[in-house]
Amino acid sequence: MNIRAVLTGKPKSSFIVQGIEQYGKWLKPYVRIEVRYLPLGGGTGREREKIKEREGRNYLKLLRPDETVVLLHEQGEQYSSLEFAHKLQKWQNIGVKNLSFFLGGPLGFSDELLSREWQKVSLSRMTFTHEMALLILLEQLYRAYCILDNRTYHY
Amino acid sequence: MNIRAVLTGKPKSSFIVQGIEQYGKWLKPYVRIEVRYLPLGGGTGREREKIKEREGRNYLKLLRPDETVVLLHEQGEQYSSLEFAHKLQKWQNIGVKNLSFFLGGPLGFSDELLSREWQKVSLSRMTFTHEMALLILLEQLYRAYCILDNRTYHY
Repeated sequence: MNIRAVLTGKPKSSFIVQGIEQYGKWLKPYVRIEVRYLPLGGGTGREREKIKEREGRNYLKLLRPDETVVLLHEQGEQYSSLEFAHKLQKWQNIGVKNLSFFLGGPLGFSDELLSREWQKVSLSRMTFTHEMALLILLEQLYRAYCILDNRTYHY
Repeated sequence: MNIRAVLTGKPKSSFIVQGIEQYGKWLKPYVRIEVRYLPLGGGTGREREKIKEREGRNYLKLLRPDETVVLLHEQGEQYSSLEFAHKLQKWQNIGVKNLSFFLGGPLGFSDELLSREWQKVSLSRMTFTHEMALLILLEQLYRAYCILDNRTYHY
């Protein structure tokens, strides 16, 4: 299974960039994960909705016919780490080839993306920056593979 | 209000250490936050319960008579970022001087700490490493102060 994490805008904080690299290394023995950054659609001024639409279209261009998409969204379903690991295993078992987590950008998702019948997953009731959400997602993916591999993972 | 975040064991990942410094800088204009690391109580072998007890006693030694303690615990109450900001404001309004977030260590909290009538807050249904939980807590504290200050915080 190929996993992609896609977000709008590159991480600005160097500790996040480092953390992404770190989890990439840790995840390598388990799964192929690609992190992809889409361009920001402009400032955050008056044209908010137009910018979100423009950014949203970039996600749609990425779609492959056999893509399983999960939106990280605050109104999504919350899983425990164990449930999330079992969810990954289930996707693997039913033969999902391409799994994409869409994280959005500073302005959130366009209505077009939100209206798709994609599963929504929430990492927390709390709101995170999208770069922090990426870091947490990678940590949970690593945790999930450790759980499925019966490995202890403490630090 | 003085805020302390206390955890057992020092962060091992350099990106976490960097992130903690970064949020420390960002939080400086708003609040005094001290991050304190308590010693690990030994290996993670057979004497798990004894180690947890030993580690737990170090938290009790830190307590000042006027301390408001919050345990970060997966069975705690979940707040949205906005609710968390209002909670902080409420503590400030009622004159809390010393607020401590206890994060525990790789083995979790001792029964002694869990039996105290302290408030428990959960960052997510997912389990995080305690060093990751620290990073998320600091991010949420920074977000909370930005919310209370009516500042936009995107990245």
